[in-house]
Amino acid sequence: MSRLGDRLREILGSDKVVTDPIIIELYSREATGLNADTLPEALVFAESAADVSKLLAFAYRYGIPVYPQGSTSSLSGSALPSGGVVLSLERMRRIKEVNVVDGVAVAEPGVRIDDLNIELARYGYMFPVDPASSSVATVGGAVNTGAGGLRGAKYGTMRDWVLGLEVVLPDEEGTVMRIGCRTVKCRQGYDLVRLIVGSEGTLAVVTEATLRIAPLPEAAVTLLAFFDDLQGLLDTVVEIRSEGVQPLIMEFMERRTVEQAAGFLGWHGKLRGHMLLVSVDVNREAASRVLAWLERVARGNGAGLVYTARSLEEAEKKGLFQLRRSLFPAQVELSRRLLGSERVQVYVEDIAVPPSRLAEAVERLLELEEKYRLPMMLGGHIGDGNLHPAVGFDPGDPEARRRVWTWFHDVMRLAVELGGTVSAEHGIGVLKKEGLRMELEALGSLKALEIMKAIKRVFDPKGILNPGKVV
Amino acid sequence: MSRLGDRLREILGSDKVVTDPIIIELYSREATGLNADTLPEALVFAESAADVSKLLAFAYRYGIPVYPQGSTSSLSGSALPSGGVVLSLERMRRIKEVNVVDGVAVAEPGVRIDDLNIELARYGYMFPVDPASSSVATVGGAVNTGAGGLRGAKYGTMRDWVLGLEVVLPDEEGTVMRIGCRTVKCRQGYDLVRLIVGSEGTLAVVTEATLRIAPLPEAAVTLLAFFDDLQGLLDTVVEIRSEGVQPLIMEFMERRTVEQAAGFLGWHGKLRGHMLLVSVDVNREAASRVLAWLERVARGNGAGLVYTARSLEEAEKKGLFQLRRSLFPAQVELSRRLLGSERVQVYVEDIAVPPSRLAEAVERLLELEEKYRLPMMLGGHIGDGNLHPAVGFDPGDPEARRRVWTWFHDVMRLAVELGGTVSAEHGIGVLKKEGLRMELEALGSLKALEIMKAIKRVFDPKGILNPGKVV
Repeated sequence: MSRLGDRLREILGSDKVVTDPIIIELYSREATGLNADTLPEALVFAESAADVSKLLAFAYRYGIPVYPQGSTSSLSGSALPSGGVVLSLERMRRIKEVNVVDGVAVAEPGVRIDDLNIELARYGYMFPVDPASSSVATVGGAVNTGAGGLRGAKYGTMRDWVLGLEVVLPDEEGTVMRIGCRTVKCRQGYDLVRLIVGSEGTLAVVTEATLRIAPLPEAAVTLLAFFDDLQGLLDTVVEIRSEGVQPLIMEFMERRTVEQAAGFLGWHGKLRGHMLLVSVDVNREAASRVLAWLERVARGNGAGLVYTARSLEEAEKKGLFQLRRSLFPAQVELSRRLLGSERVQVYVEDIAVPPSRLAEAVERLLELEEKYRLPMMLGGHIGDGNLHPAVGFDPGDPEARRRVWTWFHDVMRLAVELGGTVSAEHGIGVLKKEGLRMELEALGSLKALEIMKAIKRVFDPKGILNPGKVV
Repeated sequence: MSRLGDRLREILGSDKVVTDPIIIELYSREATGLNADTLPEALVFAESAADVSKLLAFAYRYGIPVYPQGSTSSLSGSALPSGGVVLSLERMRRIKEVNVVDGVAVAEPGVRIDDLNIELARYGYMFPVDPASSSVATVGGAVNTGAGGLRGAKYGTMRDWVLGLEVVLPDEEGTVMRIGCRTVKCRQGYDLVRLIVGSEGTLAVVTEATLRIAPLPEAAVTLLAFFDDLQGLLDTVVEIRSEGVQPLIMEFMERRTVEQAAGFLGWHGKLRGHMLLVSVDVNREAASRVLAWLERVARGNGAGLVYTARSLEEAEKKGLFQLRRSLFPAQVELSRRLLGSERVQVYVEDIAVPPSRLAEAVERLLELEEKYRLPMMLGGHIGDGNLHPAVGFDPGDPEARRRVWTWFHDVMRLAVELGGTVSAEHGIGVLKKEGLRMELEALGSLKALEIMKAIKRVFDPKGILNPGKVV
């Protein structure tokens, strides 16, 4: 039993500290497939801000790295420890309050996004940030990643939905600090709340979040359409936006990805062309008119197959979202088949380009696929220009790993060249530090990196909180 | 002619530098009625980021304070110079781009919000942040104030609508830095964009903003209702929100303010009770149903007089917004009458409390009015808990000034005690520095002030940019 473990047990109580390396190893992995290079010495399960405060004050005193962790569904390596202490917040999972009059929910960091939404649905409300991992992703993780999701084009990302935070600082006292407000309007000096949002656990540990909530839409109509010609699909998007319609959901899948995913679903040969999936929220009286208009626009721009639904329930019943949802599992299956192995890893990229540059982005991604011989599946949130090209490879093959790494680098460069960003919603972590530098350099803004490093020192003078991430 | 003026002319060209004290004095006042204690030595009209860069590099070298300025419609003293150089951005007023497909507008800081909206309306779009001063308020000023407006409950504030910025830093080179993205999703390390938003010109000078834009609503219905009983009005608000309706506009005026404002409009005796003004955006087919429902909810909670309109045009034609708009001019007239003088100053406070505490807030504001014998008009944005109590006084009467100051202090304390904020949308400037400290102290978060001061030093090591404001 480690001496560090003993000290932590004295400070926090033995039921909150684990030193068994087999368990610690489970908390040293990420959805990226990355593992800790050095196993942490201890795993702490905090149950309150006071626990976190005691831990951080202790860690500050002895210069011990602390790695805060949500559900480790990060795709950028931001939750990966290297020695030190892993701080799990999974026991802090109370929804403390839902208040429809104030339009807020107050939640601890370990609350899962889906569980929050189940609770909010009882009030006719929702939390509109919906990362694909929402069944496991936690409030704390989403705050720290600055997460987005399917509904990003309409509702934005976490930064738009966090009103206030309780955080603990990695300083001598383990200072507990409440920042922000319970109201949407809040001019509390510099915006420290949004500095913490997206900081990937490198500035402070979030122990409570006051979140803005939104009413569930009264109704929503859905169109699923397929285009032989990518330009026709993009023209449809342009026409929808030019009419001043802001869809809830507007998703894209590239034609070959559609065929693979359809095959995966057992719909062989039934679907053909690039997929466009659009849901628009409406008052119920307007459902027919808006749906007919969507169909007219799609067909006018060359859509062949078109499916529609007058409500979200009908869309679910008809399976209109299934194709889009199968993107990741279909990629896993495709990779297994191509590599002839069960042991595959799928890497999902996360760039955004201005929607007006999407055609170019798709074309160049297809060129890169060919160049690197990496079978790619390609889909994304077309409303906000967020593309998720995904490739599968054998994690045991060093040559394949290198090839993926170079591909990954070229994808980020492509995003920067098209005026986009290397990370739309997955964060920087360890995997995209080089990409962040590339992006800021292209903007002529390397000074911003210096400023970020200085801000890191202001919050975390000893550099003990999630070291090695972001900056 | 000052030596500083000569040097600035050499650096920037003589057409961009003014040293005439009469003109400088015009740029040393604020909508608060505050004046500079020490007149600036020079006034610079920048025409580009390069001009700003030259000025800041020069100012850094010689430690000269620089006060960036929009339209000086600030209500917190954030645009007030004290010696040094005033930097006016009014010549940088180009709308560089509107792109509906990407959902963005790119504007220079001197563009007025109303002018931006006139341009956007041509595309069926709008910029949804609508401060009451939007006819003069500029994009740069709104970014720096973190401005809100009538539509705040639905659309939030500036921090939700700024995607990217070009800023100039007060450092040796006058570094020009582009930060943020052209897409809604953007995970560019720490969120420096939102650190600048609301920083009141103390961290960097904004020279361009990439703004997110929103489609104009297809239709909107409006209800104007009057309640004898404040609780009935608040119950109406609760019922609307419990049904999951998020109004575009939800405004409140206290009963005596209603009578005064009605008198001001020549509608003596025609209106009675507390005012609730609600506009809800709808698909056009739903207008009748939603409007009938709104009226039913209001009457069910005791509304007496009720007026309705099925479109924003009809609401304008019927004058449904006039009462709310007359709040400020009616206060000016009331103060003139009560004080028997043309020379009055009206001070508009700006607190927010959680909407669930509004009844208490109104009651306590009425007690304060009595205590300080300061005739108050009271209205605000009830959807987001933002109240604007306004008092008038004779600026030449030092006793009245002191009384207003103490009242002002008590109003801020009340907001903090009810779990609200001392500044909802007007900012900290010089007037609310003490209030900011009070609020953070109540949260147990004075450490946040230290962090803000350290961040100020990171951006502005010599403390030359808008010194004395915020922190």
